Amino acid sequence: MSERTELEELGEFGLIERLNPCQQVLNESTLLSIGDDAAAMSYGDKTVLVSTDALVEGVHFDMVYTPLKHLGYKACVANFSDIYAMNGRPTQILVSLAVSNRYSVEALEELYEGMRLACKKYGVDLVGGDTTSSSGGMFISITVLGEAEKDKVVRRNGAKVHDLVCVTGDLGAAYAGLLILQREKAAWLANPNMQPELKNFEYVVGRQLKPEAGKQIVEFFEQNSIMPTSMIDISDGLASEMLHICKQSDVGCELYIDRLPIDQRTSKVYEEFKILADTGALNGGEDYELLFTVSQSDYEKIKDHNNIHIIGHITDKSMGCNLVTPQNTTIALKAQGWNHYSKKEE
Amino acid sequence: MSERTELEELGEFGLIERLNPCQQVLNESTLLSIGDDAAAMSYGDKTVLVSTDALVEGVHFDMVYTPLKHLGYKACVANFSDIYAMNGRPTQILVSLAVSNRYSVEALEELYEGMRLACKKYGVDLVGGDTTSSSGGMFISITVLGEAEKDKVVRRNGAKVHDLVCVTGDLGAAYAGLLILQREKAAWLANPNMQPELKNFEYVVGRQLKPEAGKQIVEFFEQNSIMPTSMIDISDGLASEMLHICKQSDVGCELYIDRLPIDQRTSKVYEEFKILADTGALNGGEDYELLFTVSQSDYEKIKDHNNIHIIGHITDKSMGCNLVTPQNTTIALKAQGWNHYSKKEE
Repeated sequence: MSERTELEELGEFGLIERLNPCQQVLNESTLLSIGDDAAAMSYGDKTVLVSTDALVEGVHFDMVYTPLKHLGYKACVANFSDIYAMNGRPTQILVSLAVSNRYSVEALEELYEGMRLACKKYGVDLVGGDTTSSSGGMFISITVLGEAEKDKVVRRNGAKVHDLVCVTGDLGAAYAGLLILQREKAAWLANPNMQPELKNFEYVVGRQLKPEAGKQIVEFFEQNSIMPTSMIDISDGLASEMLHICKQSDVGCELYIDRLPIDQRTSKVYEEFKILADTGALNGGEDYELLFTVSQSDYEKIKDHNNIHIIGHITDKSMGCNLVTPQNTTIALKAQGWNHYSKKEE
Repeated sequence: MSERTELEELGEFGLIERLNPCQQVLNESTLLSIGDDAAAMSYGDKTVLVSTDALVEGVHFDMVYTPLKHLGYKACVANFSDIYAMNGRPTQILVSLAVSNRYSVEALEELYEGMRLACKKYGVDLVGGDTTSSSGGMFISITVLGEAEKDKVVRRNGAKVHDLVCVTGDLGAAYAGLLILQREKAAWLANPNMQPELKNFEYVVGRQLKPEAGKQIVEFFEQNSIMPTSMIDISDGLASEMLHICKQSDVGCELYIDRLPIDQRTSKVYEEFKILADTGALNGGEDYELLFTVSQSDYEKIKDHNNIHIIGHITDKSMGCNLVTPQNTTIALKAQGWNHYSKKEE
């Protein structure tokens, strides 16, 4: 071949853009294609949302510290999160699984037990899948289908100047949990008789191993007739997701660093690792919180919700995407999140 | 753990049954769950079909003789085939891909080029996906969505006593192609200067590398108001698929060995490999032909179609599932198809 471009030169999002040039839509039912958390199909007064997400052993999870039941649960929740990010409700999943025969049937039952638990909690039916062998590690790809009312789908491209930027829950916890698990793994590899030291880290480790998705927030929106102008789930870090919203909405933003919601138990971990907690909150992945924008006219409706935090506002595109420090200086917002193709990745 | 059951003890279908105990359906839209070629959801007067299929490097394909463009094409067609097998029409796909960074961006563009070709030919929109890295080989999981009219979905469980058993096209060709490719690979490994000898094998190699799905047959059914009583696509071999239909329809069958449609170019390959062509036709996988049953009252409608072959009929369950030889003796039908967990697999 005359040309060779390495995958890490493009990164995941560049690769998706390169591999998926704009195509003519061939089916009437195709409403939304690549570019949001889920694709959308139109059937009568229902919009059917669909999204797929892959988890690869050694890339997204490490069998040393990931119980199979948790893995099954997390794989489902990560997919449900994509549907909530479109303001929809997950309804069905299909599970595609490749495993080597070093796994026993009982091990896979553990994995499925976790998936069934997640499905039950979120009201989702497991309707199909494919199970095959793998010569390498485990690969789990889940496809989730969801539903939304016709005019209730929220995309990434609707943020308007002056809109409020909001996040749910608290940030950086899942990555803090990963740091702890990786540290304990390293200690265990050095001394296999050692017991992992996870006491005092239950919260962050729980956020890493058993995340939850934004069901209650989407229900709150419905009960209070709130339509976010844009929304995305935080799987790759707040900074990266905010830049997606700004790019697709053709706007800029200002986020206030001292408004970033960070749990004390998370800050303590970053302190131990000599990482700024703000950096963890901005770039740590897998929190599965929702990042959304609402019109200022919705301020009264959201201001008292104890799980929604207003962290900034949308600006004109010409202003760029910025962080505002407590000293009122401005720093350009940059995504330093996960790049699964990077050789520098731990 | 107290118990350890090996995956190969159960095989793929046993595993699916064990991992997916009957679940209570939680969503009104869930129409059909595990047990057919696709799951089905109900939206107004439309039935939405969805199926997922995984292809794993080293298990389902070998990079030595699989051009990436063909691989992309085949991965799509295999999925479309599941929708046709439900008497539906594929409309959208999502592609979940894990690749190591030994692949270049240009290599993945080849793969996607093949997928786009298949989508264009079959009128399907590529609406989403996930691309991630893999520490091992390539893993492709495609989810396909399709549509069918409300009362037109054909399942595996509707075959009735006296129904005619039909297959489309010809059988055993894809496996014959695989035998040739594996032979040429072995010769090439022994002597890397050797050129592969594929002349005279274009047909079978083409059936292995670039299969097609049953679009025209499903259109023929629609134009002629034919509703098969049951249907399945032949991905694991005719014998295995026929047993699925019989099990789920609670019936038996008689298939006439001398009625199995086998192309001369396919028979010649089996002759070379000293394999009975009937064995290849019964057990060779990946033909992606359709196996279906129709009521005898539809005989006039199908008898002159040059791509539909009547190979037997449905009997009472008590008669079992049988092959009838040209000498009119009866042999029990057994599935010797692919078991991806078997250690005996080449």
